[in-house]
Amino acid sequence: MNPLPPYRLDLDRDVVSLTGDLVDIPSESRDERALADAVEQALHAQRHLTVERDGNTIVARTNLGRAERVLIGGHLDTVPSSGNLPHSRSDGFVHGLGSCDMKGGVAVALRLASLLPEPDRDVTYVFYECEEIDAQFNGLERIAATHPEWLAADFAILMEPSSAGVEAGCQGTLRAEVRTTGTRAHSARSWLGSNAIHQAVQILTRLDDYEPRRVVVDGLEYREGLNAVGIQGGVAGNVIPDACIVTVNYRFAPARSTAEAETHVRDVFDGFDVKVVDVAPGALPGLELPAARDFVRSVGADPRPKFGWTDVARFAGLGIPAVNYGPGDPALAHATDERVPEADLVECERTLAAWLGSPQ
Amino acid sequence: MNPLPPYRLDLDRDVVSLTGDLVDIPSESRDERALADAVEQALHAQRHLTVERDGNTIVARTNLGRAERVLIGGHLDTVPSSGNLPHSRSDGFVHGLGSCDMKGGVAVALRLASLLPEPDRDVTYVFYECEEIDAQFNGLERIAATHPEWLAADFAILMEPSSAGVEAGCQGTLRAEVRTTGTRAHSARSWLGSNAIHQAVQILTRLDDYEPRRVVVDGLEYREGLNAVGIQGGVAGNVIPDACIVTVNYRFAPARSTAEAETHVRDVFDGFDVKVVDVAPGALPGLELPAARDFVRSVGADPRPKFGWTDVARFAGLGIPAVNYGPGDPALAHATDERVPEADLVECERTLAAWLGSPQ
Repeated sequence: MNPLPPYRLDLDRDVVSLTGDLVDIPSESRDERALADAVEQALHAQRHLTVERDGNTIVARTNLGRAERVLIGGHLDTVPSSGNLPHSRSDGFVHGLGSCDMKGGVAVALRLASLLPEPDRDVTYVFYECEEIDAQFNGLERIAATHPEWLAADFAILMEPSSAGVEAGCQGTLRAEVRTTGTRAHSARSWLGSNAIHQAVQILTRLDDYEPRRVVVDGLEYREGLNAVGIQGGVAGNVIPDACIVTVNYRFAPARSTAEAETHVRDVFDGFDVKVVDVAPGALPGLELPAARDFVRSVGADPRPKFGWTDVARFAGLGIPAVNYGPGDPALAHATDERVPEADLVECERTLAAWLGSPQ
Repeated sequence: MNPLPPYRLDLDRDVVSLTGDLVDIPSESRDERALADAVEQALHAQRHLTVERDGNTIVARTNLGRAERVLIGGHLDTVPSSGNLPHSRSDGFVHGLGSCDMKGGVAVALRLASLLPEPDRDVTYVFYECEEIDAQFNGLERIAATHPEWLAADFAILMEPSSAGVEAGCQGTLRAEVRTTGTRAHSARSWLGSNAIHQAVQILTRLDDYEPRRVVVDGLEYREGLNAVGIQGGVAGNVIPDACIVTVNYRFAPARSTAEAETHVRDVFDGFDVKVVDVAPGALPGLELPAARDFVRSVGADPRPKFGWTDVARFAGLGIPAVNYGPGDPALAHATDERVPEADLVECERTLAAWLGSPQ
């Protein structure tokens, strides 16, 4: 099945070198097997861990009977290459596909798995597949359904890029189609029809006038947004169109439920035909919980709100408070010039090792 | 090349039967050869006519040295079949593809070519190809370039469906793309971008508020119109879009030139990027000219303005005043239930024969 020779990962390499090694094992979504094999083999070599595998998702755990268990998660997959393989290093960065999103974070987690045979808290390391594509393929979602016990934890750290700061919670997202209906006619006799595109002026006016809320949750200010992300209408160059569809995306603060988000969008577009296409709940920051508070203190900088939707919302759905914390600027995820600062890699490793109880 | 046996047309059949015969010779645009062959053969049998052919366009003329020459034109092609072949007759209609647009008119013209060996005015009959598709294929346009002398006339009657009334002139048409430009951003951080779809609210507002002119030319009131016929925008479901294009169609009274039409559209959308995609001039009704006045008197009903664009504008461009006059309701052109009233066929034949100087 896999024409490539097996890759081997050396977890004794420094975290910067290890990031480059991970970038050079291609792992586009649904093609993560070579990387998952290498990760599984490297973890099996750690005597203090028990290792499970399901598909291309690997779960490794310490079993020290500690009072608290922390989950450290990262996805193995990347978006398709845009010519940015293999990795390179310059100007204090590791460059290349997935360096930021999120093989830098995976390198940090693998290093911790090797460095810390006896952490103060039990640790569950989760390396999963298919985060970048449709949720039906997401390894974390599948494990939550098939082996929920593997994910049991008091607190989760998702190593999505956050510039080595804590980004807490995440906003929810809802997409809906708002449509107008008119009557077709020949455009030379437009008064015989009713123009569905002209009717959309009200939809766009409400979007343009919309004042997004800023919602403070646990001291973090979330900025909401309601935007058109698509518009489509027209039959032919000489026909008054009878339909126009505006696709809107509502990003909502985690204090709002999906039902409340849907009600809000229906209120904004009252009088129009609104069809919700997809919706995913946000995640509350949960910073008042002891493990989170302790971790934030350990990082030493004020946590920030997370605006984009991430898998922390899945942990929240499982009742596990979770934060985003990882190396790299999230704005460089999926970029052709994707890169991760070497300093972020080193800092994340040091901070997490210290918090988990480094033997040094 | 043509696998079908040759069709034969009998111009001694009554105009209603002849319409059915013509419907039953399929002649979708660019596939008019079988019908053009049958028309050419039937006209060659008329000793009083000289017949020319170029491609699938046939031109037949009397040469009596009359003081005035009238051109009677009709296109041979139809839009693609929607299952409405062969023809049928019921309730006083001939039903079937092209019955209205415009084999009924072609039947009337063929009957006149046979009935009138010595009309009071010299007559040029033009049966042409490819009216229903892109202008580059239009037989009339080609003949105007390659054999302009074939089209020489003092007055032209285009037998497009007009319910057996005179529809004078035609409005011009202009299509333009009006676009907005924004800045892409992730929709979770929409404030970092600029939404091109939201910006289109101003374009739609101007369209929605637009008060179309009503322009009286030669006593006929033309109703203009400015409409969106298409809108397109969007990159992905989580991206603030950086472009939105509204395609507008301006139908303008024949008193306005194409340059004036373009200036008007640019004025309406002042501040936006406007790109004219295509434009075709209208045609003045020309009803003050003696041949037109005489013909209108002969028809006996008040002429009406033509809103849709037709090939009368081509004649106008050649300096030949022209009107639309033919059997059938223009609203039924291209309809699945396309049909033409038998009474219209008979009336058009009688009116034109009388005006041209029937021997009866």
